[in-house]
Amino acid sequence: MVLNAFCMNTVSHLQHGLWVRPDSRQREFNRLDPWLDLARLLERGGFDTIFLADVAGISDVHGGGPDAALRHAVQLPVNDPAMLIPAMATATEHLGFAFTSSVLQTPPFTFARQATTLDHLTGGRIAWNIVTSHLASTARNLGFDALVPHDERYERAEEYLEVVAKLWEGSWEDGAVLADLDTQVYADPARVHAIDHHGRFYDVAGPFVCEPSPQRTPVLFQAGASERGREFAAKHAEGVFVVASRRNLPALRADIAARAVRYGRRPADLLFCQGLTPVVGGTEAEAHAKADEYRAQLSFEGGVVQMSGMVGVDLSDIDPDRPIDELRTDAIQSILNGVQRAGPAGTQTFADLVRAAMTGQFAVGTPEQLADLLESWQHAGADGFNIMHSVLPASFVDFVDGVVPVLRARGLVRDHYEPGPLRQKLFGAARLPDRHPDAAFRVRRAPLA
Amino acid sequence: MVLNAFCMNTVSHLQHGLWVRPDSRQREFNRLDPWLDLARLLERGGFDTIFLADVAGISDVHGGGPDAALRHAVQLPVNDPAMLIPAMATATEHLGFAFTSSVLQTPPFTFARQATTLDHLTGGRIAWNIVTSHLASTARNLGFDALVPHDERYERAEEYLEVVAKLWEGSWEDGAVLADLDTQVYADPARVHAIDHHGRFYDVAGPFVCEPSPQRTPVLFQAGASERGREFAAKHAEGVFVVASRRNLPALRADIAARAVRYGRRPADLLFCQGLTPVVGGTEAEAHAKADEYRAQLSFEGGVVQMSGMVGVDLSDIDPDRPIDELRTDAIQSILNGVQRAGPAGTQTFADLVRAAMTGQFAVGTPEQLADLLESWQHAGADGFNIMHSVLPASFVDFVDGVVPVLRARGLVRDHYEPGPLRQKLFGAARLPDRHPDAAFRVRRAPLA
Repeated sequence: MVLNAFCMNTVSHLQHGLWVRPDSRQREFNRLDPWLDLARLLERGGFDTIFLADVAGISDVHGGGPDAALRHAVQLPVNDPAMLIPAMATATEHLGFAFTSSVLQTPPFTFARQATTLDHLTGGRIAWNIVTSHLASTARNLGFDALVPHDERYERAEEYLEVVAKLWEGSWEDGAVLADLDTQVYADPARVHAIDHHGRFYDVAGPFVCEPSPQRTPVLFQAGASERGREFAAKHAEGVFVVASRRNLPALRADIAARAVRYGRRPADLLFCQGLTPVVGGTEAEAHAKADEYRAQLSFEGGVVQMSGMVGVDLSDIDPDRPIDELRTDAIQSILNGVQRAGPAGTQTFADLVRAAMTGQFAVGTPEQLADLLESWQHAGADGFNIMHSVLPASFVDFVDGVVPVLRARGLVRDHYEPGPLRQKLFGAARLPDRHPDAAFRVRRAPLA
Repeated sequence: MVLNAFCMNTVSHLQHGLWVRPDSRQREFNRLDPWLDLARLLERGGFDTIFLADVAGISDVHGGGPDAALRHAVQLPVNDPAMLIPAMATATEHLGFAFTSSVLQTPPFTFARQATTLDHLTGGRIAWNIVTSHLASTARNLGFDALVPHDERYERAEEYLEVVAKLWEGSWEDGAVLADLDTQVYADPARVHAIDHHGRFYDVAGPFVCEPSPQRTPVLFQAGASERGREFAAKHAEGVFVVASRRNLPALRADIAARAVRYGRRPADLLFCQGLTPVVGGTEAEAHAKADEYRAQLSFEGGVVQMSGMVGVDLSDIDPDRPIDELRTDAIQSILNGVQRAGPAGTQTFADLVRAAMTGQFAVGTPEQLADLLESWQHAGADGFNIMHSVLPASFVDFVDGVVPVLRARGLVRDHYEPGPLRQKLFGAARLPDRHPDAAFRVRRAPLA
């Protein structure tokens, strides 16, 4: 069972308002200590990765500006997630680091170098969550007049992937690094190649300036829900982040797997990780009391800020008590579909809907009940989970100390880590399989005699 | 006396060929351990910063391609220096981190966020070495057809500085962060501002997505030697990296200080750090034997690779034994001027010149002699030093264990660090002074009643 801890280098990630709790250290996100402690906790709990979400703009659709996002710290302020990784690497030996970087925010050459540096420094523990940026605010911070249209964002992402794959897989052959102390020769120039990429969006000459890292290409994560997003995931993603229901997960999985096969991949090349927010108590009643406490502390307005940003429609004027049946716009319907897809809703009013959007992935119960639930998700086709939190780190403390021992007793979570890079732990081999489309950019030469 | 340790996240920084030595750990640059050990060593030695040089391309002028740079590992492979900082921060409390980032390699919004994140995570220990990229290879990796002309590079750098100054100084007022646990209000929107930058090279809307870090603007370092570079340093730089002779340092310093005054700054707002490569021995003979050993191990071809890249002229065909007097091209003359500026030359042949270019900053002697020498540089106008190494970390071990105790006995190097951010340690205040041109982008509002 793959376990990723879904976090963000910010004050308030998904369940807005809870950052004020005394058991939250999210307010200390600017400091290293809470992240080092979290990394140690997750490694103690056998997690595969800490999965760092990110956004390079502000959710400013609500009220036509950033004010409410600022008041409620809705994914704002938000620091660079990559900078946490080298520090957390010093505190751990095995934990993987999946970090988000948008194809808009960094030129592909610069990004490839960042990721390779991280993969070197961590001994091959890096995954990249590929995003195309949904916020117009992000685009306006990066020199784009308005948001790049959705499909063009994916075209851009395709070319970005091609450039970085050429740098990671196609520039330095295996064996290029000689590091010969007697001859003072470090690399064999015959085995290092320019990439000479000239495309619609990018021109990158190469050669790459980094030697190959343990994984070359970091493990590729993606969370595309749209038609174009599914196609992108099917072609590239090794970890697919989904928020589905147990009922519709098999069909979603089968759809993406069938697309992957058309790209020459195998269904087992993709791991599907369901998003869940465990709320754990010693007894069922205790767990539900905790969930109720979280729900009561949620910031309604914070939730509306994020929903407005997600659907691109200002929802700030809607009366919280307005019956949901009176609000069937396309935007509201798409949120409602998402909430209902994820499970039973019971959303009568707009306030119910906002709360449900923040707590729809709640999984409430005792450690035994949670373990049962995760198993039932496995049977529905989840290879693992993006474990979300209500309170950082309290939610992960509850999970690691409560649920993980039960999962370990059932043989579902590792007692100890096998050696080797992240991809080796997940798929049995450190490098992208030859059948992966991005492996097509590898240079193949006969080995030296 | 300011002490910066001049290093690079690569196999071979300046004295090529020495990476093969058993006392070099530079070959392990892909791993965290040697950097953590180095950071601890430098903090033990009272250093102000580790100064991380960088280049985002390959020195490929020599022979018209990258082959010789690859063979001799001439600043290649070269990993992202910023990624070392969070890890080194976990191993130290006070050491500053000056890192190089070219205005070509990262959009200003993304870079500002990286630097602010680092400044937060390190408690305000960050400096930025501003470079404009001299290699055509860098430009070709970043979507530019050919190298941006020298003066346009500085125009671009000026606008880049303006954008990041607006983000760092002008977007979030002091007091914008409330983090009020009772009202669940994190930030005061009335004190956070868009920057709405629309210039020749960059369009960045803002607001900045990070709250102000301890220093806001990292300490600004620069090493411009050209006319345009001096002007840029005079306007922006707080640390100026120079490679001069004791004879011409006063004039260089006076020239840049006079320019700085025209920008409303004070001469004491700029610290001049001379590049020197101490070679330390228990006796003078031992020190000279060590220097001779280093000189004998230098890679002539590695030196020619770097010289060719610096002057943009392929020097690979020149016979090493050719008398220098027969080689008075503009390129050779500019190198010779640089070597002679730095001290006595004794360069009869091209091979002598190449060796002198790599060892021209050698300062050879006993700890007492080195301390005398540094003092004499202080009298000539050096506020401090960028200490370069022949062998990493051996050269810094020699310096910290040999020279620093003598400097401490003379009261020239700190015994312990004062608390506070890097700028406070260097200048007595954590923030840019109001008279700094980049402080002009600050928002000034009356404090709330």
